[in-house]
Amino acid sequence: MIASTPWPLPKIVAPDANLDRELQTRIDRKTKPVGALGRLEQLAVRLGRIQGTLFPRLQGPTVLVFVGDHGLAAEGVSPYPQSVTAQMVHNFLGGGAAINVFARQHGLSLEVIDAGVIEDLPAHPRLRSIKVRRGTRNALHQPALTADEVDQCLAAGARIVAELNITGTNVVLFGEMGIGNTSAAALLMSSLLGLPLSACVGRGAGHDDAGVTRKCAILELVQSRHHVLREPRAALAAYGGCEIAMMAGAMLEAASRRMIIVNDGFIVTSALLVASRLCPAVLDYVVFSHVSGEAGHGHLVEALGGEPLLNLGLRLGEGTGAALAWPLIQAAVNFLNEMATFESAGVSERSAVQV
Amino acid sequence: MIASTPWPLPKIVAPDANLDRELQTRIDRKTKPVGALGRLEQLAVRLGRIQGTLFPRLQGPTVLVFVGDHGLAAEGVSPYPQSVTAQMVHNFLGGGAAINVFARQHGLSLEVIDAGVIEDLPAHPRLRSIKVRRGTRNALHQPALTADEVDQCLAAGARIVAELNITGTNVVLFGEMGIGNTSAAALLMSSLLGLPLSACVGRGAGHDDAGVTRKCAILELVQSRHHVLREPRAALAAYGGCEIAMMAGAMLEAASRRMIIVNDGFIVTSALLVASRLCPAVLDYVVFSHVSGEAGHGHLVEALGGEPLLNLGLRLGEGTGAALAWPLIQAAVNFLNEMATFESAGVSERSAVQV
Repeated sequence: MIASTPWPLPKIVAPDANLDRELQTRIDRKTKPVGALGRLEQLAVRLGRIQGTLFPRLQGPTVLVFVGDHGLAAEGVSPYPQSVTAQMVHNFLGGGAAINVFARQHGLSLEVIDAGVIEDLPAHPRLRSIKVRRGTRNALHQPALTADEVDQCLAAGARIVAELNITGTNVVLFGEMGIGNTSAAALLMSSLLGLPLSACVGRGAGHDDAGVTRKCAILELVQSRHHVLREPRAALAAYGGCEIAMMAGAMLEAASRRMIIVNDGFIVTSALLVASRLCPAVLDYVVFSHVSGEAGHGHLVEALGGEPLLNLGLRLGEGTGAALAWPLIQAAVNFLNEMATFESAGVSERSAVQV
Repeated sequence: MIASTPWPLPKIVAPDANLDRELQTRIDRKTKPVGALGRLEQLAVRLGRIQGTLFPRLQGPTVLVFVGDHGLAAEGVSPYPQSVTAQMVHNFLGGGAAINVFARQHGLSLEVIDAGVIEDLPAHPRLRSIKVRRGTRNALHQPALTADEVDQCLAAGARIVAELNITGTNVVLFGEMGIGNTSAAALLMSSLLGLPLSACVGRGAGHDDAGVTRKCAILELVQSRHHVLREPRAALAAYGGCEIAMMAGAMLEAASRRMIIVNDGFIVTSALLVASRLCPAVLDYVVFSHVSGEAGHGHLVEALGGEPLLNLGLRLGEGTGAALAWPLIQAAVNFLNEMATFESAGVSERSAVQV
């Protein structure tokens, strides 16, 4: 599969904010003091705006877990062996991972996408095998991906989301797994935001202080081998990974179809950063589910203007933060569509003139 | 119904923390980096500790919405007319309030308790009528409740929870409604924590700055008519309300039965403050669902050592914050009981010696 021309960016139309006032009026008629549902009210307005309706609906919500291996894992950037990537895919397919538990709890569909796992994986109804390559190259020595591979990833992510949307899904929750991928995410963040690596590197899957220092030193070396990269596709090519590039393409396609994008943790947000540099309007379609315990995530979310719903010190990925925030997204839609109004319930409003 | 002797406090046994280490070990065997589920891990340990088991279960979760009127409403402490209290009971029974929406969403049972509404309310399967009196007295002129009425409230709250527990419920989510009850809560907070009223008074159901100033001035007057009250029953008698006293009794009974208490916003937390002054061990059974947008709530939660799960700027009461946090409580139990372990899933652990 060779992409001879760059993947054409899908056209993203900024949502129309003209409905915002009507949405807020609808909210203000509900039997509660004005503003009393706080962040849920802002969320309801955002969801209505994305869908261009006063009556937003959530349909076929699906967690997509993009998985890929990283050549840089050979340098010891993770405390876990690289084989854990494929082992965790088996765990996802067996239903035993955290994201399986939370997806089951909330009735979310779950699909695992082999974007670039080194090992062969068995056929499974919940697994899509669209490996672009068996792990990225080691970015310490060469670019992790070719420009063609980046475009293949972007296009493949877009195709998955297009198919989902055609079969009725209007909201995608993003998740990922890949030993070494906090390193790729930190390199992307540092390059695209122009921040020192020290502000972007964290404990990942569980480094101690010495491990973080070592990881940071390795990533400094990696960074020094590449030119300064402010162009998103070039940064993806330099640092990878397949799963991050695929998520970026998937997000852009989702926004072009006015789907709701539920962001997750550090790695998913690095994909969103890439996507937003390709087309800033993608951000209008995003719900920021949480801010994680990974060191750089707070800055990254802030740089994208996100206001996370949860702050639980998670640092797991897999889409777990997105899945945990899902009931709040549902609640925003439900109160908007189901609550009585002052008129319908016969409840008096606040006194026009206070005593 | 006259309580001639003070209601005897139920005996609350502090939960045994001996299981904590075993619970944490069980958590650490799950297929995720150590600590990667952040606050959910601490919550899982807490729930296991409360139930004294490595396999906590949530059974028959029920939202209890305690409702009462406040004589102080005559002074204009709320921007809403007092009649809204009864109107909102009708709304709860009709299924149109925010708490109805969220309880339905999460499969929570909902019961409304008429603790002291002024108006007559119709018989309804979801309404328990145990009015102790038709609204409290106006605390600006006299004690809101007699000592006997306080004890009747405490005992009635305890009875409700005892019945729930006998029929299989092991977790109660607390909610309330009552025009004027942020004033009673602020007075209780100020008295029992020894804080100036200005640190305890907020916008309630929606005062503007001038309204808050006026409300604070009225409450200063109220406070000056009563002696300094550090004794919890005396403070309840001075300031009310019926719903707050009933919740305090309900919480103490819940803790004595090792039930999980899900705290809500400012008024529910003021009841918890009262309960904790009657028996501090009640706090060991509490999950703090959220910190609200009401000015004093953050301080109050902090004074009780609570670490709220959500911070969404809610200021609605009704148990809405508790209901919105419910999926996180379920998630803590579910990951503990359903996730695979490294052994069961065949996933490699982190390298003992890092490369």
